[in-house]
Amino acid sequence: MKYSKLFGKTIKDVSSEETSINAKLLTRGGFIRREIAGVYNFLPLGLKVIEKIEKIVREEMNSADSQELLMPALQNKESWIVTGRWDTFDVLFKLRSQTGSEYPLGPSHEEVLVPLVKQFVSSYRDLPLSLYQIQTKFRDELRAKSGILRGREFIMKDLYSFHADEKDFDKYYKRMMEAYSNVFRRVGLDAILTEASGGAFSEFSHEYQVITESGEDEIIYCSGGDFAQNTEIAKVKEGKECDLGHGPLKKVKTIEVGNIFPLATKFSDAFGLVYQDENGKSNPIIMGCYGIGITRLMGTVVEVHNDEKGIVWPDSIAPYKVHLVNIGNVKYAEKAYEDLVNAGIEVLWDDRDVSAGEKFADADLIGIPTRIVVSDKLGEGTIEVKSRKEKDSHTETLEAFLDTASIRG
Amino acid sequence: MKYSKLFGKTIKDVSSEETSINAKLLTRGGFIRREIAGVYNFLPLGLKVIEKIEKIVREEMNSADSQELLMPALQNKESWIVTGRWDTFDVLFKLRSQTGSEYPLGPSHEEVLVPLVKQFVSSYRDLPLSLYQIQTKFRDELRAKSGILRGREFIMKDLYSFHADEKDFDKYYKRMMEAYSNVFRRVGLDAILTEASGGAFSEFSHEYQVITESGEDEIIYCSGGDFAQNTEIAKVKEGKECDLGHGPLKKVKTIEVGNIFPLATKFSDAFGLVYQDENGKSNPIIMGCYGIGITRLMGTVVEVHNDEKGIVWPDSIAPYKVHLVNIGNVKYAEKAYEDLVNAGIEVLWDDRDVSAGEKFADADLIGIPTRIVVSDKLGEGTIEVKSRKEKDSHTETLEAFLDTASIRG
Repeated sequence: MKYSKLFGKTIKDVSSEETSINAKLLTRGGFIRREIAGVYNFLPLGLKVIEKIEKIVREEMNSADSQELLMPALQNKESWIVTGRWDTFDVLFKLRSQTGSEYPLGPSHEEVLVPLVKQFVSSYRDLPLSLYQIQTKFRDELRAKSGILRGREFIMKDLYSFHADEKDFDKYYKRMMEAYSNVFRRVGLDAILTEASGGAFSEFSHEYQVITESGEDEIIYCSGGDFAQNTEIAKVKEGKECDLGHGPLKKVKTIEVGNIFPLATKFSDAFGLVYQDENGKSNPIIMGCYGIGITRLMGTVVEVHNDEKGIVWPDSIAPYKVHLVNIGNVKYAEKAYEDLVNAGIEVLWDDRDVSAGEKFADADLIGIPTRIVVSDKLGEGTIEVKSRKEKDSHTETLEAFLDTASIRG
Repeated sequence: MKYSKLFGKTIKDVSSEETSINAKLLTRGGFIRREIAGVYNFLPLGLKVIEKIEKIVREEMNSADSQELLMPALQNKESWIVTGRWDTFDVLFKLRSQTGSEYPLGPSHEEVLVPLVKQFVSSYRDLPLSLYQIQTKFRDELRAKSGILRGREFIMKDLYSFHADEKDFDKYYKRMMEAYSNVFRRVGLDAILTEASGGAFSEFSHEYQVITESGEDEIIYCSGGDFAQNTEIAKVKEGKECDLGHGPLKKVKTIEVGNIFPLATKFSDAFGLVYQDENGKSNPIIMGCYGIGITRLMGTVVEVHNDEKGIVWPDSIAPYKVHLVNIGNVKYAEKAYEDLVNAGIEVLWDDRDVSAGEKFADADLIGIPTRIVVSDKLGEGTIEVKSRKEKDSHTETLEAFLDTASIRG
């Protein structure tokens, strides 16, 4: 892609309403643009990051034998009355049509999926079952001040699993834990598996928490990895020695990037979702639900991976792999661009007629992992290669660079 | 995919509320399931069809140098007041938050995109510009009785183009006509380019109309291809001889699967979207908009491509390429399934322990293009191959079948 043609350039001044690091950097970099509080446009650069995150999430969910479907945002009010959440779900948007009918605008999809599953599942032969979607959710948040970390409209992967008994549920819950760890590792996040409130029907749920000063959550954890609890439920105090001798427990601010939740039979009971076992006996179905906020994940990566110059994207979800910058030498830049594209490398070429300083500053802000410079000084065939993360750079031939396959998309 | 594991099986009884062919067949086939009137769940089979349509649409829009972005459903009321559509857009859903603020729930995105483009476009150097998204739209339709042809929530590709002058606009409008023809041809539809009302600011817009008895639109057209107008604007009568001697003009019912629309400066003027030309003079930007309903396209294909047994998917958007049916011989079916999968062929294997008749009826209903039968009678290595469209079948070796690359995904 030629940067001169790309819709959504870097900008200098961000609205004072954007107070979060993720919204400031993503807006300045030309990834997102605020529509209203808590609602964003994703410009072409931003959409590319989202697509890469979605691909990773899909791969891991499919690997865990989950099937993708797509449920609607407009839901059935009756189902929300059945579960009692029509009046108790505090951030539920209620939409009124011109005929006066009311509809919940989906903040979650248990009320859609459980009745849907009931239409197809009746026997032990139909279980276990795992279903997920990547879909837009709506929540009537009163304060939406943290950029794309907590939006009123956001993209979420929500997965629901259905089991004949607790043992089968436990097995799948552990499998999902692994899938979740894989997702967070692959997008470049250290996520801490943390015990949290299980609601009225389970002892615990589990959250994946990423340490960062701007987090809205707080956890107490052992850096050795054997203990982490959300402070909402923690009975131990910061400073206490961990049981395995890893040193004192620490209290830190975090962002919740995922959560997995045993639902027991809460929703199955509400809708009468049962199965017949091998003896023809009717039993309730055990459920779990598992969420990852796709847009929140993107925002969290920015909160964690940045420096004073801008964003530092992990390779796996960077919008492009290579940022090509030419200082003069347009003719060779054109050839280098074509060679990179033909080698299957995702490249953004800053082909504008502006100063080297401006190009470098924009490249640092946008945060693409590898910068390649061609210039009159270097001449033809030689490039300067610099990693966004490391300070050093080196020169090599473009040919040699193309031979290194590791950075290819 | 093994059919026994697939979520969303064929069903016999469809709610009497489903009166359209597309909703009946897609519901019976396990592709969709109604949530509320005009709002559907897309089960795994249905989502596969949608993904294939989206891929074709993306390829054609990208080929026309359009850039993909993603705009939100929750929009800014102020912008709708600026264009005057807050009070005049008849199917606009208005959402009220708990703080009392009102938001339009996007039925279209001019009010989002034009202000957004204004933030980045100011010079003739920034033009032309073409942007599109594939996104969920909401319309407060009073009657939503035609399945996924006219929903209250539906997936749409909407594209907007921005030009310095009429000449450049005309050039791009023609380019979009070609892109649109490509899309409809590739999904297996004969779409007739039809003149329709251009609103208050253009002589004509253009619709792509597909002839079918269940259509809500009506056109008068020449089968020779040199004339088609929506009856809303047609001044000629059915039966009149076409100017090129192709015979009498016909009046038929149609479904509008796409429309392209010259917007002139309607929205640019509303938001003050201008550009500086080479002489520093300020000029209004000329716009066009171009829509394809993704879910409507899926419904239209079903309305057109079906017979008394069920759906007949075109190869390009079928959920799977091969429907493998075994009559006994489970052991060889298992091997054939693996061989097909390993050859990169998308295959649905009906591995259930039910009668051959039930399997064949379901395969006909689901409508996958190629059916492969393995049986005790045929033994190992030999398969019966039948096209969903044609009546004849033949036997060959699986090896020979795998060598024919034409049906591969």
